Amino acid sequence: MPQPERKLIERVQRITRGRAAKVILRGIGDDCAILRVTPGHHLLVTTDLSIEDVHFRRKWHPAASVGHRCLARGLSDIAAMGGEPLVCFLSLGLPARLPQKWVDEFFRGFARLARRFRVPLTGGDISAAPKIAADIVVAGQVPAGKAVLRSGARSGDRIYVTGELGASAAILKRLAEGQRIPPAAARSHFYPEPRLAAARWLRERKLATAMIDLSDGLSVDLGHICDESRVTASVSAGSIPVASGATLDLAVHGGEDYELLFTAGPRARIPARAAGVKITEIGRIQARKDYPAVIRILDENGKARILRPQGWEHFRQRIR
Amino acid sequence: MPQPERKLIERVQRITRGRAAKVILRGIGDDCAILRVTPGHHLLVTTDLSIEDVHFRRKWHPAASVGHRCLARGLSDIAAMGGEPLVCFLSLGLPARLPQKWVDEFFRGFARLARRFRVPLTGGDISAAPKIAADIVVAGQVPAGKAVLRSGARSGDRIYVTGELGASAAILKRLAEGQRIPPAAARSHFYPEPRLAAARWLRERKLATAMIDLSDGLSVDLGHICDESRVTASVSAGSIPVASGATLDLAVHGGEDYELLFTAGPRARIPARAAGVKITEIGRIQARKDYPAVIRILDENGKARILRPQGWEHFRQRIR
Repeated sequence: MPQPERKLIERVQRITRGRAAKVILRGIGDDCAILRVTPGHHLLVTTDLSIEDVHFRRKWHPAASVGHRCLARGLSDIAAMGGEPLVCFLSLGLPARLPQKWVDEFFRGFARLARRFRVPLTGGDISAAPKIAADIVVAGQVPAGKAVLRSGARSGDRIYVTGELGASAAILKRLAEGQRIPPAAARSHFYPEPRLAAARWLRERKLATAMIDLSDGLSVDLGHICDESRVTASVSAGSIPVASGATLDLAVHGGEDYELLFTAGPRARIPARAAGVKITEIGRIQARKDYPAVIRILDENGKARILRPQGWEHFRQRIR
Repeated sequence: MPQPERKLIERVQRITRGRAAKVILRGIGDDCAILRVTPGHHLLVTTDLSIEDVHFRRKWHPAASVGHRCLARGLSDIAAMGGEPLVCFLSLGLPARLPQKWVDEFFRGFARLARRFRVPLTGGDISAAPKIAADIVVAGQVPAGKAVLRSGARSGDRIYVTGELGASAAILKRLAEGQRIPPAAARSHFYPEPRLAAARWLRERKLATAMIDLSDGLSVDLGHICDESRVTASVSAGSIPVASGATLDLAVHGGEDYELLFTAGPRARIPARAAGVKITEIGRIQARKDYPAVIRILDENGKARILRPQGWEHFRQRIR
């Protein structure tokens, strides 16, 4: 192994050290990691790519933010199942001329989030690449049969979101317009918070019938719940918690908020806050007549229009 | 999700269908895959990046070979622990202008190998990227406490390899010289065979004290076993099974053979073939005096020289 890789791996091993060896029987240093999943639990696995100039720009995003966001994407997927993250793996493609300081800062942002959620980096791969490419794999667990799926929403269920929507897209829009934004003033974009505690709170109380994380935008992600649950939905525009600085359009179509979108039975008592996070009811699940599901959004006067799943990919291409 | 991605996912789901649902409780279509690891077993996880113009070239490697090699790298890591692969995940970065036919062929090569080893594609991510980037994640299992580690080699153990070495590097060298090579005539490079059956055979009989797969080249990978086992080694040049068309130098420093390198106690009876694969004794493990371990290679006259871990990365850069 070339020296720079060896150094990186040693840095990663230092981050990992100190983690209880209950889960990781063998981490970095062999052909595979060896893990022990708690008896009575199922394993969760998610993978997410972060590609330079697609998911982030070096000009806009400090390296520590890129590292944080890379891991946050995986943790948010574990949250969306009501799971507990155990370990992560990182495959990293790095251009030969990338300054070492960038890589150090990337790992600093990554490791800070990993430590906070006690998710040690347990393996991965490092390679040369034309642009930065980071693939995060997070493994987690959930008590057997208790994962909250996308497919559990039923006609009559209420639709809820955590936090506020559109903040991340609003910052991205301002970055695209050439504004300089200090990351500390826009944490929801640069350092989003995976909603692990709120998701677990909901799962433990059996309150959520279906759940997804808002990575692609409400219009797309609500569509996923409707598709998998074979239902449709109507959303009330006036009740959507639009983040300060964002617009309704950004709250509905902008992605990367990493809030939770979930449904609950009409008689479930959903509090205004769970695990310190605001929860807002935004609409209802309805029986489906069409395929794919046609989701409606009601304006302040009760007038319905179709909520087209424009989604994040399309949205990002538009503002670039 | 944009239409091309949806199509890809649907194709992937078709590949997956038919697999016993024993392991996969939830595959593609939710935020995470949900897996059931067999009680009494530990989980194995490995990730490997394949990057265009680093690990393969579109000019040299047919798309089906790129897909095959991508998965083979992960399966070979599972083999190196004596494990059984369960499922795989693929994160794929694709240039916008890549022909759909390339992607189809990539998946054809990938799916053919996945079907042969019954390793369904269970999740992943697809994104735009400047060059093709494929990160393979393979999850497998091994009976609790039975994984064959890199760290188990002891002074006096014999060193063995499966198959023949240097064939893959010899083909790469010829490709770099501008030769056209029909993939069917050079399967060890274009369609390498992960040694899962031979590895399992060795693990079940408790014959191997340490094991690794030869992905980076003998000089590097034997170094990994020595480092992790805190031993050193001497290898006899004359006994190395050099593949037809290769040289001793390619057999020792060339990578991507995906054969197994393992050690066994001096009294272990290692047959000349296991699970249909040739096995050759090539040297001995010795007590270590130096750090890092200085591995020696003995020529036909018994004269020793130091086997420097040049390895694959360095080697590839040299021939490019």
